[in-house]
Amino acid sequence: MTRKMHLNLFIQGIGHHEAAWRHPGTDPADMMDIGYYQRLAQQAEAAKLDAIFIADALAINHHVEHGPFNNFFEPFTLLAAVAAVTTKIGVIGTASTTYHEPYDLARKFASLDRVSRGRAGWNIVTSGNEMAAQNFGHDQHMQHAQRYARATEFVEVTRALWDSWEDDALLADRAGGRFVDGRKLHPIHHEGTFFKVRGPLDFPRPPQGHPVLVQAGSSTDGREFAARFAEAIYTAQNNLADAQDFYGDVKARMRAHGRRPDQLCILPGLAAVVGATRQEARDKAAELNEYIVPQYGLHQLSNNLGLDLFTYPLDGPLPELPPIEAINGGKSRYQVFVDLARRDNLTIRQLIHAIAFGRGHDTFAGTAIDIADHMQEWFEGGACDGFNLLPPNLPGDMGVFAATVLPELRRRGLFREDYGGSTLRDHFGLDRPVNRFTAQPAMAN
Amino acid sequence: MTRKMHLNLFIQGIGHHEAAWRHPGTDPADMMDIGYYQRLAQQAEAAKLDAIFIADALAINHHVEHGPFNNFFEPFTLLAAVAAVTTKIGVIGTASTTYHEPYDLARKFASLDRVSRGRAGWNIVTSGNEMAAQNFGHDQHMQHAQRYARATEFVEVTRALWDSWEDDALLADRAGGRFVDGRKLHPIHHEGTFFKVRGPLDFPRPPQGHPVLVQAGSSTDGREFAARFAEAIYTAQNNLADAQDFYGDVKARMRAHGRRPDQLCILPGLAAVVGATRQEARDKAAELNEYIVPQYGLHQLSNNLGLDLFTYPLDGPLPELPPIEAINGGKSRYQVFVDLARRDNLTIRQLIHAIAFGRGHDTFAGTAIDIADHMQEWFEGGACDGFNLLPPNLPGDMGVFAATVLPELRRRGLFREDYGGSTLRDHFGLDRPVNRFTAQPAMAN
Repeated sequence: MTRKMHLNLFIQGIGHHEAAWRHPGTDPADMMDIGYYQRLAQQAEAAKLDAIFIADALAINHHVEHGPFNNFFEPFTLLAAVAAVTTKIGVIGTASTTYHEPYDLARKFASLDRVSRGRAGWNIVTSGNEMAAQNFGHDQHMQHAQRYARATEFVEVTRALWDSWEDDALLADRAGGRFVDGRKLHPIHHEGTFFKVRGPLDFPRPPQGHPVLVQAGSSTDGREFAARFAEAIYTAQNNLADAQDFYGDVKARMRAHGRRPDQLCILPGLAAVVGATRQEARDKAAELNEYIVPQYGLHQLSNNLGLDLFTYPLDGPLPELPPIEAINGGKSRYQVFVDLARRDNLTIRQLIHAIAFGRGHDTFAGTAIDIADHMQEWFEGGACDGFNLLPPNLPGDMGVFAATVLPELRRRGLFREDYGGSTLRDHFGLDRPVNRFTAQPAMAN
Repeated sequence: MTRKMHLNLFIQGIGHHEAAWRHPGTDPADMMDIGYYQRLAQQAEAAKLDAIFIADALAINHHVEHGPFNNFFEPFTLLAAVAAVTTKIGVIGTASTTYHEPYDLARKFASLDRVSRGRAGWNIVTSGNEMAAQNFGHDQHMQHAQRYARATEFVEVTRALWDSWEDDALLADRAGGRFVDGRKLHPIHHEGTFFKVRGPLDFPRPPQGHPVLVQAGSSTDGREFAARFAEAIYTAQNNLADAQDFYGDVKARMRAHGRRPDQLCILPGLAAVVGATRQEARDKAAELNEYIVPQYGLHQLSNNLGLDLFTYPLDGPLPELPPIEAINGGKSRYQVFVDLARRDNLTIRQLIHAIAFGRGHDTFAGTAIDIADHMQEWFEGGACDGFNLLPPNLPGDMGVFAATVLPELRRRGLFREDYGGSTLRDHFGLDRPVNRFTAQPAMAN
């Protein structure tokens, strides 16, 4: 069997283009309507995508006056409602290790995995956002390295909690009056730097053993974290060479953690603008950019680059920036924006236009054939295992992609005709984790 | 229009009787199946109940070897999946103010309210459970008075966050490029004893303004808290006189907080065992009690009474108990158990049987007419505004109740024929809260 791409639909409001909400092809009322998200997930399931992917922020954004910044639903309630009306597609939700407790998240993801019958994934983030910190009792947000140290301990505790019921702990032995086998429940008695957790969890082990662990940071700390824990990575890569470097680096780092490279799917974001002709695709992209409200991009760039850009001319060059060491937010996003601006010597306005489709993710306009060629080049060129799709307008551009690009990928044998299983681990080709507390059967001689 | 009862279905696993899981009328596999909870909620909606009600614990229970202790789903994911397959019935979930952050719960309930299109309720608890404390970094759990002080500040912050978007803050003005009206978003800048929260929330105001606030503790602290905040109370009352005292006391306390008594529904638990004849009802109750595993009740009583009962003879009397001042868990439940035992001079085994149906809630076996009489007596006698129903077996006994008791209540004009609205506030007859940040229109002269 040939290797197949993995494709997620990243659902972000009514489209990833920052001005999608102003485009006549969208309906802003959809953002508030759970039915919209449910229908979109059903559409993605009909297209046989691996999963839908939901971001999250724990604070409002400064640029909200000029455009949306997230979904108007938090991930657990959104994804449970989506799971209720789908049967195959994975549901990946973002949750922060900085502002939650491991016992709480362990049980919420265990529950989402059971609600979806084995389709849950956790996109682990450390929330590099000052506003979020101020909503959770802090003046400033935690330092980058500290956040990753906390995330590491958090994930270790969470995985131990998921294992705290062996798979066969629940007896429900009516005649004998034994509900669970107490010998198969395990307190974890964790005492670490950040957390003290007794356990066991109050739920049976999730259907997938562990919900799929997804990660989205690409700094050095982020890569090391991913190599150790992640089973899927969502990463911002905007050219083939960088994507290949990243792919090779993270897969190599996995070996140091005793992991097989096939147990991690690397999925860069792809903002594809599809046209019947190249001109039509370019026109569509240009039309979307006409709706841009510059203040939105100025807020976003100022936030990511650690500098107030409102005082500089829009059509002038980027000013001198603080060094990456001074950035305590998304370090990898800072680097992507700086590289983009320097490569083509962009003005501030041009940089705003360049990131309007995908916030620094790979943006590509062309015909379905062009896009399939581009995806194939990355997929076969050691740059990725598939893509996190960022349609400019939603639901419209998901429909266009499914109707034009997916058939071309299938014709080339690069994407599944149908689901082979019904869990997210099945779709991603990931092993079900062995329970650390379950005695291994003796090896045969 | 005559006053009508409000009725919730409290869904607790496959029944409220502690041995329901051993009864041939239930299926333990249902506990793990989201479809079971969804069908049960649909059944309750077909019966026109006000809401389903879901408890929660943040720890496993010592008696899990001998019986279930909660649902194998956490409330947000469970209720969002239920909301996705229903359109009218309210969805009330329990969440603790002791182990969460107000910003986190404010957004989750706002989101559940939006997923359900205005049907969410929050059962506010303070988690009097040592095991939960140990899952959240503490050696011991917080003292009772301290927990209520924290809960009070928590609810104040949460309500302010729900108001932090005025109802008309979202503009989605495409032509003007204005997504929200920044003047209608309000940081709350809260700095209190327990929390420091900037705000505003990252979601628009919930459809109900505020999800309905429900409360379940009946200690003095609990009553005062309820009089101030609660819009529905779930309370354990096992005789008419005590229920009347409680009802009168809490409604009177509301006035000191400037609230109208009709803005709070007091709903004691009711474990009704329905038979075609009284003898059949008694036999059914006796049959369920035959499945009791005494260790389950011993763990439960030991935990609630603050004393290890395993060393005392099952058929002997309750030993000397610690005074209520020494109880740092559910103080009101302690009192209910002690009163039950003393009133009828029960042995330990008899007390276990007496609480097996409803953990101290009113338990009543009889014909549909008897049960309707009993409910009417409480409802018209100033003891309640309705009931939280605790069927012994599920889904079976919900079906029996809907088919026999509800028609009798309707015949008497005591329960609705159909829903009059589509939000939980509509069902409970509660006002939609005015937003504290919205300027009141000037009074007409």
